[in-house]
Amino acid sequence: VIERLSSAETSVADLREDALVARIAHRIGPPPAGERWTGDDAAFVRWRSPGLLLTTDALVEGTDFELRWSSGADIGYKAMAANASDVAAMGGRPLHAVIVLALAPDTRVAVVDGVLDGILEAGAEWKIAVVGGDLSRASALSVCVAMVGEPHDDGIVTRDGARVGDAVCVTGALGGAAGGLMALSQGWAESGPPDAAMRRLTRRQLRPHARVTEARALVALRPSAMIDVSDGLAVDLARVLASSRVGCEIDPALVPVDADLVALARARGDGEVDPLATALTGGEDFELLFTIDPDRVATARAVLGPHDCPVSRIGAITDGRRRIGEHDLEIYEERGWDHFRARPDP
Amino acid sequence: VIERLSSAETSVADLREDALVARIAHRIGPPPAGERWTGDDAAFVRWRSPGLLLTTDALVEGTDFELRWSSGADIGYKAMAANASDVAAMGGRPLHAVIVLALAPDTRVAVVDGVLDGILEAGAEWKIAVVGGDLSRASALSVCVAMVGEPHDDGIVTRDGARVGDAVCVTGALGGAAGGLMALSQGWAESGPPDAAMRRLTRRQLRPHARVTEARALVALRPSAMIDVSDGLAVDLARVLASSRVGCEIDPALVPVDADLVALARARGDGEVDPLATALTGGEDFELLFTIDPDRVATARAVLGPHDCPVSRIGAITDGRRRIGEHDLEIYEERGWDHFRARPDP
Repeated sequence: VIERLSSAETSVADLREDALVARIAHRIGPPPAGERWTGDDAAFVRWRSPGLLLTTDALVEGTDFELRWSSGADIGYKAMAANASDVAAMGGRPLHAVIVLALAPDTRVAVVDGVLDGILEAGAEWKIAVVGGDLSRASALSVCVAMVGEPHDDGIVTRDGARVGDAVCVTGALGGAAGGLMALSQGWAESGPPDAAMRRLTRRQLRPHARVTEARALVALRPSAMIDVSDGLAVDLARVLASSRVGCEIDPALVPVDADLVALARARGDGEVDPLATALTGGEDFELLFTIDPDRVATARAVLGPHDCPVSRIGAITDGRRRIGEHDLEIYEERGWDHFRARPDP
Repeated sequence: VIERLSSAETSVADLREDALVARIAHRIGPPPAGERWTGDDAAFVRWRSPGLLLTTDALVEGTDFELRWSSGADIGYKAMAANASDVAAMGGRPLHAVIVLALAPDTRVAVVDGVLDGILEAGAEWKIAVVGGDLSRASALSVCVAMVGEPHDDGIVTRDGARVGDAVCVTGALGGAAGGLMALSQGWAESGPPDAAMRRLTRRQLRPHARVTEARALVALRPSAMIDVSDGLAVDLARVLASSRVGCEIDPALVPVDADLVALARARGDGEVDPLATALTGGEDFELLFTIDPDRVATARAVLGPHDCPVSRIGAITDGRRRIGEHDLEIYEERGWDHFRARPDP
């Protein structure tokens, strides 16, 4: 896949996202010793001690959000959160952001004002200075954020350090953002009373929390690997396992399923929503998935407790296969987020 | 315009690009002392001496390029050049880039390979490490580059330092990129023999040169203000004048019109192409426009000569009106690039 294509007509949908990323990473080539370019949440370069973290991530109308249920402020906030989460997952502190807004000419200025509101709100929340950007014209709205951060004095946390015997842990609860997206796209949020559970679920989709301070508190405990859960637990765990060349045994009963997602599933009935499957495969929760010496899990819980950030130990790193309960991880991985895979319209 | 809109229905096309930029800059607010956020080619922040330059710029299919006449490599190269030029215009050295590629699912992988080729070719040319990025899905192809650079030891060169009596100078020749776009969009490049002049013109449009080494050579001469000519001489000069709160007297006879553009105009005949107007208003030449003590113009020519970079002194900074020959600058400014202004299809 990396070296050659079967046909000049091969499209990115044929190739799929992770294969395309691998192809691009291969072209970019390996970084100098001590740097980290592709293949992690953010790039790390050794410019000016202690170096610099760089990341970029875009939200595109019709792909990452719909103006029917996302306000401008939601979109701006989430674009910042996604980037801040990437810096956090390296153990770093986000510092500065620059932003390209691509706008259709008929975009209302009020929507642009909203996007700025959300960007600045997120900047204030995580102390990120929004220092500039550019405007472009496009047929759909998109917000492309690039962020610079500084690494923790103890160094960066990468995806490739998981060791056999490490505990696999995840912060918070999973599946809420995906549950919120279901509710919004199916119109469940508008029908019936907007109860507290539904409000929290849609908020997890629209206004995700980036674990910036939590990640920095974790770094002092030396997690062996870390990633943010942006494309779904199964997909992001698979990335850690592949980078670290290890296997895992995950106990599905230990996976922290969002309580509001469980309530939603119960309210819908008839198995319409599968909470565990959603927690394993739903994206955009922006929780931290990390591996750590099992002796330090209790300390991690103690350190993150004051941040209102529970830590669940969901399994262990092994030298064997990649297992979730009785299944291979691949089964869930296939259901995670892939930008280019054909899928039904929402 | 900045404070309030006449109607909630006002669109970005109603407001226009520079007014929208001013509105956003107002919202972002002023930077701490010694920093430069919005309102210049790149942002400058005081993180780790001697500080950091940050910029971002995107190329969007249908707005900034057409796949009918731009190869993937052209697009990748130009996206890098536009950002490198912004860092150069602050007198800085571009160091690292991260890139979002937004792709339609049916985009051929060969096009993506081409974009990478162009990005890496530009990276090699200006010694910029491409360290990471992200993929997204969109209905059209776009390349969003964010670039980090380091300022010159002598400090940054901003837009706001032009002083009455300074010479107004521009590097290279103007109008070539716009002439190349005319030739490509009108199909002139395909009809008739592809002579050397046409090849150079289309290359100026498709593979612009960022004056990275030239700008660094200039900084030692302490230009009082500098900007890259990306949206047209009149528009970019107006930005310098507004930031510096000065006027100008420009002699149109001294404006360096691209020789190949003149040849194109002659070949087309009938006044179809106006070389001087194109040189004054055409965008994307990525030349450097700077103001400098008149006593140093000769030195600037001597310093840039070895870079194959002519310097034209086109006028002077005044405390009066903004004049190009017998006209007010506004007349030409109106014809420069505005992303959101309604305009005929090419």
